[in-house]
Amino acid sequence: IERLVLKVWTFLKKAWDLGVADPRKVIHCLKVGMALTVVSLVYYLRPLNEGVGKNAMWAVMTVVVVFENNVGASLYKCLNRVTGTFLAGVLAVGVHWVATQSGEKFEPIIVGAAVFLLASAATFSRFIPTVKARFDYGAVIFILTFSLVSVSGYRVDKLIDMAHQRLSTIIIGTSLCILISMLVCPIWAGQELDLLITRNMDKLANSLDGCISEYFDSSEDAVDDEESQKKLQGYRCVLNSKATEESMANFARWEPAHGRFNFRHPWKQYLKIGASMRNCAYCIEALNSCINSENQAPDYIKKHLSDICFRVSSNSSNVIRELALMIKTMRKSTKIDFLVGEMNIAVQELQNDLKSLPTSLLPPPPPPPSPPLPEAETTPESKQRETISNTAATVPLIEVIPLVTLASLLIEIATRIEGIVDT
Amino acid sequence: IERLVLKVWTFLKKAWDLGVADPRKVIHCLKVGMALTVVSLVYYLRPLNEGVGKNAMWAVMTVVVVFENNVGASLYKCLNRVTGTFLAGVLAVGVHWVATQSGEKFEPIIVGAAVFLLASAATFSRFIPTVKARFDYGAVIFILTFSLVSVSGYRVDKLIDMAHQRLSTIIIGTSLCILISMLVCPIWAGQELDLLITRNMDKLANSLDGCISEYFDSSEDAVDDEESQKKLQGYRCVLNSKATEESMANFARWEPAHGRFNFRHPWKQYLKIGASMRNCAYCIEALNSCINSENQAPDYIKKHLSDICFRVSSNSSNVIRELALMIKTMRKSTKIDFLVGEMNIAVQELQNDLKSLPTSLLPPPPPPPSPPLPEAETTPESKQRETISNTAATVPLIEVIPLVTLASLLIEIATRIEGIVDT
Repeated sequence: IERLVLKVWTFLKKAWDLGVADPRKVIHCLKVGMALTVVSLVYYLRPLNEGVGKNAMWAVMTVVVVFENNVGASLYKCLNRVTGTFLAGVLAVGVHWVATQSGEKFEPIIVGAAVFLLASAATFSRFIPTVKARFDYGAVIFILTFSLVSVSGYRVDKLIDMAHQRLSTIIIGTSLCILISMLVCPIWAGQELDLLITRNMDKLANSLDGCISEYFDSSEDAVDDEESQKKLQGYRCVLNSKATEESMANFARWEPAHGRFNFRHPWKQYLKIGASMRNCAYCIEALNSCINSENQAPDYIKKHLSDICFRVSSNSSNVIRELALMIKTMRKSTKIDFLVGEMNIAVQELQNDLKSLPTSLLPPPPPPPSPPLPEAETTPESKQRETISNTAATVPLIEVIPLVTLASLLIEIATRIEGIVDT
Repeated sequence: IERLVLKVWTFLKKAWDLGVADPRKVIHCLKVGMALTVVSLVYYLRPLNEGVGKNAMWAVMTVVVVFENNVGASLYKCLNRVTGTFLAGVLAVGVHWVATQSGEKFEPIIVGAAVFLLASAATFSRFIPTVKARFDYGAVIFILTFSLVSVSGYRVDKLIDMAHQRLSTIIIGTSLCILISMLVCPIWAGQELDLLITRNMDKLANSLDGCISEYFDSSEDAVDDEESQKKLQGYRCVLNSKATEESMANFARWEPAHGRFNFRHPWKQYLKIGASMRNCAYCIEALNSCINSENQAPDYIKKHLSDICFRVSSNSSNVIRELALMIKTMRKSTKIDFLVGEMNIAVQELQNDLKSLPTSLLPPPPPPPSPPLPEAETTPESKQRETISNTAATVPLIEVIPLVTLASLLIEIATRIEGIVDT
């Protein structure tokens, strides 16, 4: 029993931490509770109940299944639900009328066939990507309403009455949902997406900087505090945020103008930017594996390149940060061209340094310089020395190459984003 | 109008292609249609209807919302639905009883407060990751049932009767769903996951091979047929399959023993393998950017390394393929240790080749060999020549390095997977 209590306790602790970490989740819960209580009480207090009838149950159900964390998702579900119910209702009444006209015997056959065909077709439509993205929920509701209405077995005139009532209760439910989710501490999917992208950009810039400084400072400090480690791992968030970005962009499309965003804000551009950021993060991942690799370059060679590498990384991350700022302010920055130019210059310099590296470093400081001999005549001793100088010449290349790849990729991405973001 | 017809036509064409590409989707749709028709007709034909009562509507609804593409998802939803309904029903009856005992005036207050509290709490629980993974749908159903029952305003004894009926209809619906989804052409989430992972492994191996051959053959053929290009891009599937893997593993947990899989098959291992595969795919992504980069090594240097690179890549991809086979047959392969050993030897050789490269290639075949002089005394002419030989010495390193990274990563991954997969 004690273990059970402990388990429950840790579970509650975790839940509490979650709530403290993101109070908006708690607010969302309270909003759901509120909406549901309002609907329930409307239903519970009989006098009000008369007009809407027994169907008020549908209002409760609508609130429960439609209320989502952000406005876009709620709107998407509401509109889908209303449209799906309406379409299915009309169709079902039509099928029902045909069935009753065709006599007792054929009635169940016609109804059954109609349900089978339409349910199959609607289910299939859910597999089509464009439909899935926008009308998935609507299709479910369509199937549900159609089969419920067409098998209800009422006469057509009563059916129309019922359909009318049900639609009106659903509209009551959805409008309550929309009102509460839009007015009480709204969470806009678009804003979330915007925040996610800009925050990811900052993380990317931080982990790029962190990688380079970690790589070149590793000799001095082995402190590796959690803070910097966390910064370094920031690019992982970028790698993993694809699904979130897509669903957010999907919901954001349904949202009306809010804050700095218009109704037809180009949400798809965010996805493109996200994809380029992931491309970039792949490179940082490769770079990171260099840091953790076993064969490290000797320090004196690292020093030789550290300045220019720091320059490249800080210039690149400045470009990313400036882009994040551009997206935040939605204004074309005047500084961006300058920053990209500076980054390009730094990359060019790094490339030149790399080219001149083997010559300039063949005489490494600690061992006395030995001009390499033609291979055929090498004595074992000089050969060994050569391998030393060779590793000295090659190893830093091994370590630095990803930087060049990264930098050139960054340029490509930066220029591409530059073209894209002219909102 | 013509454009509209054309649009509808292309849409239908797309849908048809989708159906042809994956006939199981069509079968799933027919299954849904079948289940729904059976339930509807049961409801439609009055005589059978008496026992289950008006609540039969709930059976239809259950079928619509519970029936999913694979068995695991259906089971998950069914169990969640039944449990959620049952728990909520019991709680709601309790709350209702308390409310009726406390008199007319407090009744709505108590009911309202209970709905508010429980709805908020259940909504909040949906944010907790472990609950979200396993009981998300159950929480929704809990809220729904609780608010419906507690505000229904019936007397307690009638309520119990109703709850009993509703639960029984839901059980009828769910068992029909489970039967149809498990007996008629079942699609098991576990099997799908297994297939996805092994297929992704093959794709990874193919695109690794493709990358290397593309890189070293690029001089000869510019045919770039679609087939090989598609193979090359296979690693992108690996990068993008994270969400699918996770949901599949989540559903697979609910499935009973089927085919080669036991009930408590270690599905989580698949996720780990998937993660290591993604790590590997990041490297291939970096490698791929080398292929498309502008500065390519001269051919004679490529030739020098092509043999060993081919060896490394084919050995690595053999290891991956063998791992895929191991997962497919679920048997520890005797060959795997041998293959890993061979791969390690190849990697070691490649590293040695790289180390000896600058010396052995300083005299490039086309220009006459010139032994590099100490820097201070270089004439402009010799300096230029040196840069040539230097670029010759450095550029192939730039291109080959990711291979080494990749190979060493592969080893790491391979050994890790080796440890994991002993199912």
